[in-house]
Amino acid sequence: MSGADGYSVLFEPVQIGPVSARNRFYQVPHCNGMGHLRPQAEAAMRAMKAEGGWAVVSNQETEIHPTSDLSPYAENRLWDERDIPALRLMTDAVHAKGSLAAIELAHNGHHAQNHLSRAPLLGPSELALQTAYPKQARAMDKSDIREFRKWHRAAARRSREAGFDIVYVYAGHHMTLPHHFLLPQFNDRTDEYGGSLENRVRLTRELLEETREEVGDECAIALRFAVDEMLGSDGMQAQEEGRAVVELLADLPDLWDVNVADWSNDSATTRFEPRDGFQTSYIEFVKQVTSKPVVGVGRFTSPDLMVSLVRKGILDFIGAARPSIADPFLPNKIKEGRIEGIRECIGCNICVSSDALGVPIRCTQNPTMGEEWRRKWHPEIIESRGKEEAALVVGSGPAGLECAMQLARRGYDVTLAEAKQELGGRVLQESGLAGLSAWRRVTDHRIYDLQQRGNVQLFTDSSLSASEVVELGIPNVFLATGASWRRDGRGKSAFRGVSIESGSQVFTPDDIMSGVMPGDGPIMVYDDDQAYLGGVLADHLAQAGREVVFVTPASMVSPFTELTLEQVKVQRGLLEKGVRLVLSQTLVEITPGLAKVQCAYTGREQSVECASVVLVTQRARETALYEELRNLPDKPLTSLELIGDAANPGLIADAVYSGHMAARNFERDAGDIDREFFRREIVSLESA
Amino acid sequence: MSGADGYSVLFEPVQIGPVSARNRFYQVPHCNGMGHLRPQAEAAMRAMKAEGGWAVVSNQETEIHPTSDLSPYAENRLWDERDIPALRLMTDAVHAKGSLAAIELAHNGHHAQNHLSRAPLLGPSELALQTAYPKQARAMDKSDIREFRKWHRAAARRSREAGFDIVYVYAGHHMTLPHHFLLPQFNDRTDEYGGSLENRVRLTRELLEETREEVGDECAIALRFAVDEMLGSDGMQAQEEGRAVVELLADLPDLWDVNVADWSNDSATTRFEPRDGFQTSYIEFVKQVTSKPVVGVGRFTSPDLMVSLVRKGILDFIGAARPSIADPFLPNKIKEGRIEGIRECIGCNICVSSDALGVPIRCTQNPTMGEEWRRKWHPEIIESRGKEEAALVVGSGPAGLECAMQLARRGYDVTLAEAKQELGGRVLQESGLAGLSAWRRVTDHRIYDLQQRGNVQLFTDSSLSASEVVELGIPNVFLATGASWRRDGRGKSAFRGVSIESGSQVFTPDDIMSGVMPGDGPIMVYDDDQAYLGGVLADHLAQAGREVVFVTPASMVSPFTELTLEQVKVQRGLLEKGVRLVLSQTLVEITPGLAKVQCAYTGREQSVECASVVLVTQRARETALYEELRNLPDKPLTSLELIGDAANPGLIADAVYSGHMAARNFERDAGDIDREFFRREIVSLESA
Repeated sequence: MSGADGYSVLFEPVQIGPVSARNRFYQVPHCNGMGHLRPQAEAAMRAMKAEGGWAVVSNQETEIHPTSDLSPYAENRLWDERDIPALRLMTDAVHAKGSLAAIELAHNGHHAQNHLSRAPLLGPSELALQTAYPKQARAMDKSDIREFRKWHRAAARRSREAGFDIVYVYAGHHMTLPHHFLLPQFNDRTDEYGGSLENRVRLTRELLEETREEVGDECAIALRFAVDEMLGSDGMQAQEEGRAVVELLADLPDLWDVNVADWSNDSATTRFEPRDGFQTSYIEFVKQVTSKPVVGVGRFTSPDLMVSLVRKGILDFIGAARPSIADPFLPNKIKEGRIEGIRECIGCNICVSSDALGVPIRCTQNPTMGEEWRRKWHPEIIESRGKEEAALVVGSGPAGLECAMQLARRGYDVTLAEAKQELGGRVLQESGLAGLSAWRRVTDHRIYDLQQRGNVQLFTDSSLSASEVVELGIPNVFLATGASWRRDGRGKSAFRGVSIESGSQVFTPDDIMSGVMPGDGPIMVYDDDQAYLGGVLADHLAQAGREVVFVTPASMVSPFTELTLEQVKVQRGLLEKGVRLVLSQTLVEITPGLAKVQCAYTGREQSVECASVVLVTQRARETALYEELRNLPDKPLTSLELIGDAANPGLIADAVYSGHMAARNFERDAGDIDREFFRREIVSLESA
Repeated sequence: MSGADGYSVLFEPVQIGPVSARNRFYQVPHCNGMGHLRPQAEAAMRAMKAEGGWAVVSNQETEIHPTSDLSPYAENRLWDERDIPALRLMTDAVHAKGSLAAIELAHNGHHAQNHLSRAPLLGPSELALQTAYPKQARAMDKSDIREFRKWHRAAARRSREAGFDIVYVYAGHHMTLPHHFLLPQFNDRTDEYGGSLENRVRLTRELLEETREEVGDECAIALRFAVDEMLGSDGMQAQEEGRAVVELLADLPDLWDVNVADWSNDSATTRFEPRDGFQTSYIEFVKQVTSKPVVGVGRFTSPDLMVSLVRKGILDFIGAARPSIADPFLPNKIKEGRIEGIRECIGCNICVSSDALGVPIRCTQNPTMGEEWRRKWHPEIIESRGKEEAALVVGSGPAGLECAMQLARRGYDVTLAEAKQELGGRVLQESGLAGLSAWRRVTDHRIYDLQQRGNVQLFTDSSLSASEVVELGIPNVFLATGASWRRDGRGKSAFRGVSIESGSQVFTPDDIMSGVMPGDGPIMVYDDDQAYLGGVLADHLAQAGREVVFVTPASMVSPFTELTLEQVKVQRGLLEKGVRLVLSQTLVEITPGLAKVQCAYTGREQSVECASVVLVTQRARETALYEELRNLPDKPLTSLELIGDAANPGLIADAVYSGHMAARNFERDAGDIDREFFRREIVSLESA
């Protein structure tokens, strides 16, 4: 199948209860770190999805009452009518682009912590919070359940007032009361809300019925439900109770939005779940049981797979969270046959990390994500060039590629020079490691784009000196010269580095990623970066059959990956491969065959035998060319800018963003740029 | 010394540059989790300090630019003139109560993470973030430093426009650029801003001079400076460079606000630093070097100590953060000779934990803290009773005592019945453990207060059945019957409990706190609560000479105590006492002499030898009396309410809050109560 015609099935309208979706592309609810704290940013971001062709655009979990207070996280909020205007911003903006707006009503039970409201915590049973905070939920009595149903009913009514077309009942991700009631791992009640499945599903059924009573004439009712907990026989399974739930409620909602629990499984990264459509085997039964339309997810980016899922009767709607973040215009690009123009999600969960930090969403592939309101960045539109005509970009890592691509889109003649033999910089290196191959999409997308353009010249194997740069005669220069991993042990735990005796076998991540393999004997991976790379390298070396000891000042492997929902899988993976973990220890000295480490708590020293050490600590910016150029006496350049890791080492997402920003801001008024930098949403001082 | 007259020195006015403080009580800057997200709450809370007699009331660290973006934390913000109105709320409110308002300008360098602004990170040197986030600050060049100085100057100017009387330059807590430049652990520059102390202090000097140029005619300039890093010779020491800094800048600021770094040392808990005035030996030199007034802190609550510090010429101002939170009216109470009425800070850092969570401040001792705006709670004023005349409170833990005290203040005839032989409930128990003796102030304060009142009857050794309650003939009953630690292992990691073979020696925290000591042999403390108590019990048993093995599913001891700045000290303490740590392991089975644990990552099992197990997992609410009373057929009571841990197990702070709320809300209109529950500050929808 190929060409836009073959995809026409994806663009058929589909009825959902009383409302009609113009095509089969459905942005399921997903968090974005904007929510009630940044409603204008949220509205602009959701509207961009609608503009890009998503027929349904959902918001994110929406607190319905102070007893479900997720502060400090910035989800949506609909405690009472005062919250309606902020939500109305989104529905108006989505409607203006011709799409339906959906709201995900949520009461988070003991998943909420009520730190702002200080309200009592509620649950089906007596439940301790999962976080290390000593608070417990009380088992709801009958009057609590009646109250909760009233709150949900009122929230449904207010959803309609706010202009939503689809109202969710949310029983998924282990995150909400209806889900907690459904699952034996949270519910040990002995009344009519506990025990049998009929009893455990009662609350969900009541919410569906009551939501329909309130808004069913105008709004569709969606049920978001996790058919499988991915715990095997220790949890609900798709072919057992998961199916039975769908059978019990089959035609009660107007739409089934089905996935797997918990969130880390639903939103699995490519590192641990490389297959697009990885949820299909769990959810494919649903359409056999219900006559209502079904939406499912699975990091779909291939239109052929989408068509096949519809044709096979597995899905009515192609659901997406992450692919719609990486490319809000995915539907339109398929419709217009611009498949190669799709920015495919790399499954890195940097989007999730923003929500987990309580800050606005960002995306590795799509640097405009989260900037639709603040910087008015449009993923598909960029201003044409001004009076300057040409630009040189040095370095083809994520910052350089993105900068070059956007400059080319603006109409400049772009020359991109890469010192190495292949384009891609750190993405090329990192995507060669175990589990990270999908990250290569970051460079593939951009290299392909650049190759199609007549105004771009790409040079590899082209290391440039300052005088060579000047000789090129291109007056505008962007330096994306990157950063290299330090070899001296300097890092967050050792500002002055570590003592390294000569003769010690010391390697950096750059060495390993370039294919160097340390000689025989145990390899210590010392991770003072504590992000992802140390864990990936240890895994990579273990998979290559090497004996690995992983040492870190952190109390766990790769704590950063808690933000990407991967940490448990990362540490499990290393343990299962026999990697020895030495946690909460700081490296102080390396001698041939032996490393001295110090307890991060007591300072007590111990020795760890290892033939070699890979130091994952801190990066050194490559700024020599920049310093040379900026100090040239005769100032031959019109503009010179350092971008990406060479300016501020960070994530690949940060490098792409930096390259994008430099290209956008080139030739713009400095005052305008500065004003955007300060743009933010501010709390009202009106008395409440 | 005794009586209010002896304290008159504390109420002398003191000149600070161009402004005059009406007495010597000075609320130093402290975070409160309100900040730019909750400006009305912040203003009301600061105004309460002014009303209570603090002559100077400071705000908290105030971001001066998007390159110092502390999101998602809710500190103050002064990026540009748009932030002035929110800050003006506070200065107006503080001035209305006759006090001076101070602002703590801050650029947090690489301590900021710029997650919202996505701005470059700045530092004196190339610095990795301390958090597990892979971003680095770049070493500021000369133009960066010039820019920063301009931002600081502009922020000082705007501070004056916002009505502040005192403007801070902040070089403390390892948190700000001036401090980072000062300290060799962050500064390895080779230019005039690095190397010698003169060079490292240059930036602070420039900021002081430039702030004076901008606002020195109207505002006083304060320098907040950490004289000692508490790292011995590895850091700046009070008697070495700390003193030299004060000598170099001696009379440049109008006021010295001195303390120790880092924050965990400045804000040490009573568990690890029981002495009031614990910073005195570090800061006492300062007044010998400068002619300007000096403010210092040290959890001061004793007026005799305060007088002595002033008379000895150590301090001009009695600085306080935490004591002013526990009792905003501390100065007025001293002035009026009501020393016994002071709610003394217990040094638990629950206040700090709120800020660390990004939510509004709370306090164990002072349940009105953080509720000045939302609920209009005044710590010293409470509404008189309505038509009801008497109330019975059952249980004298923190909820029961607080409830009884506030009911008595409202004018009810209060009967308090405690089943045990001594009043105090869980506070009595927990404060008997190693390190927690200061927590007893929670009950001491309340019991003393109750004992002074003619309308209160206290009964101990008075367990009540439902019929006995009814026989008392008191129609309004508050049940603070508490919660007891479970003996079955149920907790966040084991909803169905753990397998316990008969004959196993299993204890609960209640057993240990009641003085039971397990028999010979190693004791396992199993901590699935992960808050503080498991770590405290392990410490307690180790101090009693017992062999202890500490097992927890968490990756560290007592992760909750990261929020109270104690975690490193907790884990270090156990390690130094020889406690064996078995981390990231879940308990699955207890048999006599042996426990089976499972790796939290892989599920691999191992056995741990132990003669006995103390289960710190979850608590069971004591609700039997409540259920009996609410189900009485003839409804003999007018009102019945479950409060404290019996309603929702939580922190002692939560129990006090619950008791306070119940007393405040008794006889109030239900609709009014509900409306307060929903009260919050909402983001403006005005276009920016």
